[in-house]
Amino acid sequence: MTKNQNEPFREKIHRIIFEADSKIGQLFDIILITAIALSVIIVMLDSVESLHDRYGDIFYYMEWFFTILFTVEYLIRIYAVQKPSSYIFSFFGLIDLIAVLPTYLSILFPGYHYLLVIRVLRVLRVFRILKLITFIGQAQMLKEALRSSRHKIIVFLFTVLSSVIVLGSLMYIIEGAKSGFTSIPKSIYWAIVTLTTVGYGDISPQTELGQMLAAVIMILGYGIIAVPTGIVTVELSKVEHRIANTKVCSSCSEDIHDNDALFCKRCGNKL
Amino acid sequence: MTKNQNEPFREKIHRIIFEADSKIGQLFDIILITAIALSVIIVMLDSVESLHDRYGDIFYYMEWFFTILFTVEYLIRIYAVQKPSSYIFSFFGLIDLIAVLPTYLSILFPGYHYLLVIRVLRVLRVFRILKLITFIGQAQMLKEALRSSRHKIIVFLFTVLSSVIVLGSLMYIIEGAKSGFTSIPKSIYWAIVTLTTVGYGDISPQTELGQMLAAVIMILGYGIIAVPTGIVTVELSKVEHRIANTKVCSSCSEDIHDNDALFCKRCGNKL
Amino acid sequence: MTKNQNEPFREKIHRIIFEADSKIGQLFDIILITAIALSVIIVMLDSVESLHDRYGDIFYYMEWFFTILFTVEYLIRIYAVQKPSSYIFSFFGLIDLIAVLPTYLSILFPGYHYLLVIRVLRVLRVFRILKLITFIGQAQMLKEALRSSRHKIIVFLFTVLSSVIVLGSLMYIIEGAKSGFTSIPKSIYWAIVTLTTVGYGDISPQTELGQMLAAVIMILGYGIIAVPTGIVTVELSKVEHRIANTKVCSSCSEDIHDNDALFCKRCGNKL
Amino acid sequence: MTKNQNEPFREKIHRIIFEADSKIGQLFDIILITAIALSVIIVMLDSVESLHDRYGDIFYYMEWFFTILFTVEYLIRIYAVQKPSSYIFSFFGLIDLIAVLPTYLSILFPGYHYLLVIRVLRVLRVFRILKLITFIGQAQMLKEALRSSRHKIIVFLFTVLSSVIVLGSLMYIIEGAKSGFTSIPKSIYWAIVTLTTVGYGDISPQTELGQMLAAVIMILGYGIIAVPTGIVTVELSKVEHRIANTKVCSSCSEDIHDNDALFCKRCGNKL
Repeated sequence: MTKNQNEPFREKIHRIIFEADSKIGQLFDIILITAIALSVIIVMLDSVESLHDRYGDIFYYMEWFFTILFTVEYLIRIYAVQKPSSYIFSFFGLIDLIAVLPTYLSILFPGYHYLLVIRVLRVLRVFRILKLITFIGQAQMLKEALRSSRHKIIVFLFTVLSSVIVLGSLMYIIEGAKSGFTSIPKSIYWAIVTLTTVGYGDISPQTELGQMLAAVIMILGYGIIAVPTGIVTVELSKVEHRIANTKVCSSCSEDIHDNDALFCKRCGNKL
Repeated sequence: MTKNQNEPFREKIHRIIFEADSKIGQLFDIILITAIALSVIIVMLDSVESLHDRYGDIFYYMEWFFTILFTVEYLIRIYAVQKPSSYIFSFFGLIDLIAVLPTYLSILFPGYHYLLVIRVLRVLRVFRILKLITFIGQAQMLKEALRSSRHKIIVFLFTVLSSVIVLGSLMYIIEGAKSGFTSIPKSIYWAIVTLTTVGYGDISPQTELGQMLAAVIMILGYGIIAVPTGIVTVELSKVEHRIANTKVCSSCSEDIHDNDALFCKRCGNKL
Repeated sequence: MTKNQNEPFREKIHRIIFEADSKIGQLFDIILITAIALSVIIVMLDSVESLHDRYGDIFYYMEWFFTILFTVEYLIRIYAVQKPSSYIFSFFGLIDLIAVLPTYLSILFPGYHYLLVIRVLRVLRVFRILKLITFIGQAQMLKEALRSSRHKIIVFLFTVLSSVIVLGSLMYIIEGAKSGFTSIPKSIYWAIVTLTTVGYGDISPQTELGQMLAAVIMILGYGIIAVPTGIVTVELSKVEHRIANTKVCSSCSEDIHDNDALFCKRCGNKL
Repeated sequence: MTKNQNEPFREKIHRIIFEADSKIGQLFDIILITAIALSVIIVMLDSVESLHDRYGDIFYYMEWFFTILFTVEYLIRIYAVQKPSSYIFSFFGLIDLIAVLPTYLSILFPGYHYLLVIRVLRVLRVFRILKLITFIGQAQMLKEALRSSRHKIIVFLFTVLSSVIVLGSLMYIIEGAKSGFTSIPKSIYWAIVTLTTVGYGDISPQTELGQMLAAVIMILGYGIIAVPTGIVTVELSKVEHRIANTKVCSSCSEDIHDNDALFCKRCGNKL
C-alpha cells in the first residue's frame, strides 16, 4: 500500500467522522450522538441501587461495549487527522480521551466509573459538527459577552467572597456550635447558601442577633444579584449592537441597519 | 329547512360564541368565563379530603353538569364554524376537547378527573375574545422577544443541563448514599435544586468537599441567572424599539422600521 | 373669636403639620417620625412573649399613649385643612385613620392590636414632607416604569398562575397524599414555592416522576424570572430617557442632552 | 542622624510598602498577600474543633506571629508616610489597625480572635497596589453605577422593609405561635426569608390562609427582584456609554461626552 493510496482513504475517513456535509458523515454523527446519550443514561441508571441489583451485569457489559466503541473511534480520529498531536491536545480531543478513561481506571479504582457522565460533553461537538450556524453564532455571542465582562465579574466575585468570609465568621461568633455553626468554614458555607438565596435550612440561625444579621445578608444577596445581571445585559447589548452592524451604506456611510435591510434607511441607496 | 335559512342562523351562532362585538356575544363570554372559573374551583376543592367527604356528591354532580355544558358548547362550536376541521385542530379547539375529556375518562380510570384543571387554559381565550387589544399587543411583544431569543436560550439550557449532569455525578461520588445522594439521577435532581437557588434542603451535602462543591454550584447558579435575564432584556428592548414605530412603507407595506428611518429598508421607497 | 382671627391660626397649624419649610414644622416632623418609629417598635416587642410577660403593662400604657397622641394629631389635621373631606379620603388620611383604629378595636377584639404596625406606612409621609425632591423624583420614576409595564406584567402573572394551577394539579396526581401533596390547593402552593425558587422543603416530591416534573418547574422558574426583569429594565430605561430629555436646542432642535449640558452637542448653541 | 539623611530613607520605605513600581516593592506586596491569605486560613482552620484540638498550639503561635508581623508593618507604614494622621484615618489605615486588634483583645475577651478574618479586606489593597488598571476601572464603573442609583435603591429598600413589617405582622396574627410564628420580629424575619426567595423552611405557614398570603409574598418577591436589577442595568448602561467615550474638550477639559457629540456640552467648543 503506497502512501498515495492511503492518503485519500484517510481523507475519506476524516470527512466522515470530522465533518457532516456528506450523507454518510451525517449518519455517523447521528449514530455517535445516540451512542453517547445511551452510554450516559446507562451510567446514570447503574447508579440506582434497585436497577443495579437487577440489571448490573447488563449495564457492566454495555459500559465496556461503549467504552471499546469510543476507544476505537478515538484511535480512528487520531489516525484520520493530518497532525495527530493537534487533535489530541485540542479541547475535544481531551474530552474524547477523558470520556473513555474512567472505565479502564475502574479496574484499578472501583466506583469512579460514574465519571463516565463526562461523556455528555461530547455532545457539544454536535453543535459544531452539524454546522448549526445559528446556534454557533448565538453561543459565540454569549461567550463574547461573558468574556468582555470577565473583569467586572471577577471584581464582583471577589467582593462576594470577602463578604461571605467576614459575614460567616461574624455568624460563627454570634451563633456558636449550638445552632449548627460549628466552625468558620461551615459558617461561610451557610453564608453562601443564604447570600445566593438557595436557603437549604440545614443550618439556620436561632438567636435574635443571628436572625437579624441573616436578614441583612438575605437582603444584600437579593439586591446584589442585580450586579451580574446588569453587567451581562449591558455587555450582551453591546455585542448584539456590534454584530448586527456589518452593513454599511456605500452612498451615505450610514452603518446601523437591521439584518433584513436591503436599502439604506437614510438615503434609500441599495445596500 | 333550506340551506339559505340555515346559513344565517349558523352565522348568528358564530357571532355569539366566537366574537364579542354584540351584546349577547359579550354576555355569552362572561357566562362562559364564570362557568370555567367555577368548574376549576370545584375540581380544586374536591381534592381537599375534608371537603370531599362532606360535599363529594355535590362536587360530582356539578362536575358532570359543567362537563356536559362544555361538551354541548364544543359541539355547537363545531357546528358554527364553516370548516370544522380547522377549528378542531386549532390550539383552542384542542384545549376545548381536552377540557371535557378527563370527566369521561374518569369513568374508566378514576383519579384522573383532576386533570380538568386544564380548563383554566380556556380562560386564555378571554384575552382573544374580549378584544383586549392592549393585552394582546403586550403578550405578542413578549412572545416575539422570547421567540427571537430561543436559539440563545436553547444554548443556555443545554449548557445548564450538561453542567448539572456532570456536577450531580461528581456529588454522587463525593457524598455517597449516606447524605441522601443515593443515585446519579437523584444527585442531578439535587444539582438542579441547588443551581436554580430553590434549595429544598431535603438532600444536602454533609462532607467538607461536598459543601465546597455545593458552594461553587450555588455561586455559579447565582451568577448565570444573569444570562437568560440579559438575553430577554436585550431582545425585549429590540422588539420595543421596532414596534414603537408606526411607520409603514406605502410601496411594499413593510411595517418594521427604525425610528430614524427615512427610506424603506426593503424597497428603498421614501417613507 | 372671629373667623378672621381663626383663619390665620388654622393656616399656621397647617403650615406646621402639613409642611416642612419652617423651623417648627421640621421639628414637628422629626418628633412625629420618632413617635411613629417608637410606637411600631413597641408593638413588635409586645409580641415577644418573654418581653410581654415582663413589660406588658408598660407596653399597654405606651400603646394607648401613642394612640391618643396620633388621634389628637388626626383631629388637628382635619381641623387644619380647608376641606376636611379631601384629607380624610386621601391616601394619607386613610393611613392616619387606620393607624389608630386597631387600639380602639382591640377593646372589642383582643389580639388585633398588632395591626398597629400599619403605622410604619405613615413614615412614607416623611419623603413627602421633608421635600426630599430627589427621592420623590426617583420614586416617581420607578412608579412610572412599573405603571407603563403593568399590561405586560399582568399577562406574565396570568401565565404564571395558569402554569402553577396546571403543574400543581399534575403533581397532586403524580405524588399523592403520601409526600405531603394532600390536595390541589396545597400542590399549587408547593408549585408557587418551587417556581419562585423559594423552596421551603416542607413539602417535596418523593417519586422519580415527581422529581423530574419538579426539576422542569425549577428550570422554568429560574428562566422566566428573566421576563419581569426584562420588562422593568426596558421600561425604566425608556422612562430615564424621557425624563432626561427636557432640554431642546433652539437652534437645531436636538432634544437628547445630558442633564449637565449647557451647550448643544450637535451645533454648539447655548441651551 | 540629620533630617536630610532620614528623609530619603523614609521615602524609600514608602516606595517599597505603598507602591509597586520597583522590583522590591512588588516582592513586598506578594509576600504581604501570601501572609494575609495564610493568616486568614489559619483563623478559619482553628475554628474547626478537630483541628483545634490537634494543632491548636501551632495555630496560636502562628496567629501571634502574623499579628506581630502586621503590627510592625502597621508601625512602619505610619513612620513612612509624610502625614501619619492622613494614613491612620484613611480606609486602609483603619482596616490595617482592625486587622491586628482582635489578637490583642483576645487576651482580655477570649473567643473574639475569630474577627481576625477581617484581614481578608486587606487584600483589597492588592487591586490598588498592583496597579491593576483594568480591574480598578471596572470596579470604578460598578461603584459609579451603584452610587448614581443609590436614591432609587433606598426608595426600593424602604418599600421592601415597610412591606415585610406589615406582611410579617399579618402572618403573626394569621398563623400564631403554633406554626413557629412566635413573635412579630420572628414573623418579619420569616417574611424576609420568603420575600428574598431564600426559603429556609425552619418556619413555614400551616394554615390555608397563611399559605395563601405566603404565596402572594413569594410572587411579590419573585417579581420585585426585577426592580433593583432594572435600576442597576440602566445605570450601568449609562456609565458604560459615558466612559466608553474618549472625547475630551480641548477648551474646558470636560471629558464626558455622548458618542455623537460634535460640540462640548459645557463650553460649546467644537470637539
